[in-house]
Amino acid sequence: MAVKDMMIRIAEIEIVPNYLEEYKAILKEESEASVRLEPGVISIYPMYQKDTPTQIRILEIYADRQAYESHLKTPHFLKYKTSTLNMVKALRLIDMEALDPKTMPHIFSKLKE
Amino acid sequence: MAVKDMMIRIAEIEIVPNYLEEYKAILKEESEASVRLEPGVISIYPMYQKDTPTQIRILEIYADRQAYESHLKTPHFLKYKTSTLNMVKALRLIDMEALDPKTMPHIFSKLKE
Repeated sequence: MAVKDMMIRIAEIEIVPNYLEEYKAILKEESEASVRLEPGVISIYPMYQKDTPTQIRILEIYADRQAYESHLKTPHFLKYKTSTLNMVKALRLIDMEALDPKTMPHIFSKLKE
Repeated sequence: MAVKDMMIRIAEIEIVPNYLEEYKAILKEESEASVRLEPGVISIYPMYQKDTPTQIRILEIYADRQAYESHLKTPHFLKYKTSTLNMVKALRLIDMEALDPKTMPHIFSKLKE
């Protein structure tokens, strides 16, 4: 897996308040399946702001563009995308670059199941 | 390590353009040392926006508040903080909540050194 090929981004998503619990359940199912089933998904790590829970942030890392394209065709992503369309008020996808790719394997590595 | 004790946040930092390269070098040194030396630092993962490299984002995860307090007292953090004070134009620390703590051990786990 070559670091230079990696796709890193932060998704900033605002959810219609009435749909928040439903949206979170669907996103949780989708992100869990993506990390478990797709070898090219390094991270789909969803969070929400404590003070403004309708503000979702997702750290997404794909091994390369091909891994990302293939992710877009998975049943779990398609289900997420179609079932949450009307719940999403705003979506911004921000392409990022890692400052220190060498340290990445140690991030989260202290966590045990 | 209890998930409920974890401190998760996203730091949004804007850097004075003239200092950007210097700032990134100092941040890289600090984040690498934090992850390597501090058992309670699960993640200090620095990124910058591809389109606006002066916009830094850091995913910070500490095992608990005590791990965070102890991080603030380390020589590497103090060096970072004092040497970058005049380089930081804006700083926002946003407390986050993980949507799916159970999947966290698998995030980044596909990366090898």
